[in-house]
Amino acid sequence: MIDGVGVVGLGLIGGSLARDLTAAGVSVFGWDHDPEVIQRARDEGVIRDRLSEEILQQLEVIVFAVPVRASLEYLAKLARLPHRLRLITDTGSTKREICAEAHRLGIGSCFVGGHPLAGDHRSGWAASRTGLFHNARVYLCATPESSVDAICCARDLWLLLKANPEVRTADVHDAMLAWTSHLAQLVSSAYGHALASAGYARDLLGPGGLSVARLAESNSTLWADIAVENADYLLPALTQIERSLLALRTALEKRDREQILEQLSVARNWAASESVPGRASVTVQV
Amino acid sequence: MIDGVGVVGLGLIGGSLARDLTAAGVSVFGWDHDPEVIQRARDEGVIRDRLSEEILQQLEVIVFAVPVRASLEYLAKLARLPHRLRLITDTGSTKREICAEAHRLGIGSCFVGGHPLAGDHRSGWAASRTGLFHNARVYLCATPESSVDAICCARDLWLLLKANPEVRTADVHDAMLAWTSHLAQLVSSAYGHALASAGYARDLLGPGGLSVARLAESNSTLWADIAVENADYLLPALTQIERSLLALRTALEKRDREQILEQLSVARNWAASESVPGRASVTVQV
Repeated sequence: MIDGVGVVGLGLIGGSLARDLTAAGVSVFGWDHDPEVIQRARDEGVIRDRLSEEILQQLEVIVFAVPVRASLEYLAKLARLPHRLRLITDTGSTKREICAEAHRLGIGSCFVGGHPLAGDHRSGWAASRTGLFHNARVYLCATPESSVDAICCARDLWLLLKANPEVRTADVHDAMLAWTSHLAQLVSSAYGHALASAGYARDLLGPGGLSVARLAESNSTLWADIAVENADYLLPALTQIERSLLALRTALEKRDREQILEQLSVARNWAASESVPGRASVTVQV
Repeated sequence: MIDGVGVVGLGLIGGSLARDLTAAGVSVFGWDHDPEVIQRARDEGVIRDRLSEEILQQLEVIVFAVPVRASLEYLAKLARLPHRLRLITDTGSTKREICAEAHRLGIGSCFVGGHPLAGDHRSGWAASRTGLFHNARVYLCATPESSVDAICCARDLWLLLKANPEVRTADVHDAMLAWTSHLAQLVSSAYGHALASAGYARDLLGPGGLSVARLAESNSTLWADIAVENADYLLPALTQIERSLLALRTALEKRDREQILEQLSVARNWAASESVPGRASVTVQV
């Protein structure tokens, strides 16, 4: 049983984490760059108290639920503080850099990167809610020296939140997420960018257009960081979707209905298909 | 008050239309290429009876809720039958061709094209439901000779369904929908196509990726027809999103964080902005 969790960043992810952990009976201490958010979280009983350097020494787990660049800074700060943590983890969308940094800082044994697939275009404390992680997939990425205890502790943390933890190497994670998440963000933003260029307002969209455009509303700073950090894996994905769009445009220029149908059908079959088991999919067995 | 509506095609749109019209006390007669669907709609009390050529002569309104190419065929068939209809309408995503065809067939005075922004990736009778059109925007596109009575009747039909009818010319409609709907479909399909090429299954996506990929599941035949029919307006839209993606890729190749942030911010401001009043936005006043 985990007791004593520090959550740094009480936004959509951190706030939701604190809500469900507290509801599960865990003592949660929170920190946010906005003192008002800490106050509200305390007033609403979502955290027991403000996270301080003194309290840190009594905790088992600390979670950085802040943008990737901020997590790296907090990690460096934490490495210089006394603590008895079993697990240091984060919730960012890229994992190679932070795992490497934990190793470099000499805290790799208790670090296990985390990435819950539960974010959306909303952010901040006001967007946080109970149940955000129910049935959500969460990737756990160990460093070369992560202890079995740290990995088990990360698994227990997410099971407590009713999420489904799966282990990946940081490299496999970043390669996959470039396609399954980061590319989707760029495509949605490019769609918004195109409509802005053409002067068509968002409220002209129907349900379909809104679905594609939804991520365009995401935090731009956060995503610019993710894109740059994962550029090596994201570039081939971008090139592929440019090819797919070019193929559609070429067929459309020729009014080649059969070729368009063929392209759309490939996508539809993909969308309708069941899981492809085995693709880098190993559930935690520890 | 409208009484006696024929609905041709009892899928997502037609089935939902029939449900709400019947609930509003209108006599609805339905037809579908699948006899079982007609039977089920009758058994569930969603339609009063099967639509026949005899019943047609007693109706005020007929709605074609079938793919664009099928609507054109039904329209030609209807033009040869005796009827006393006040309104012939449809629900397709493109409006120039069907409005021109109604004019050419000599039934332009009682034809007003319709397009509810209520469709999604699902289709068929099983996907139909009550309340689908509540607060949905519905575009009404008159022919050059549509009567005021036909336009009023179309407005009343959609008001009865609690939708928000707005008048557009077929040309303005098709130009706008190329960007706000048809481009979104191609982008979602291209995303699915790219992921299929890379071998990443759909169930690896989180909520964000699923949002962008949702339309990839749409009916390919229906959308191949729409794309070809609206190719002249869709091609410039496709070219623009290719430019937006190229700009992102170029910035990413240089690891130019500021340039990526700038692109994402344009899209985010667009997504967060309120309505731009005036852009081809004229509410029905008849």
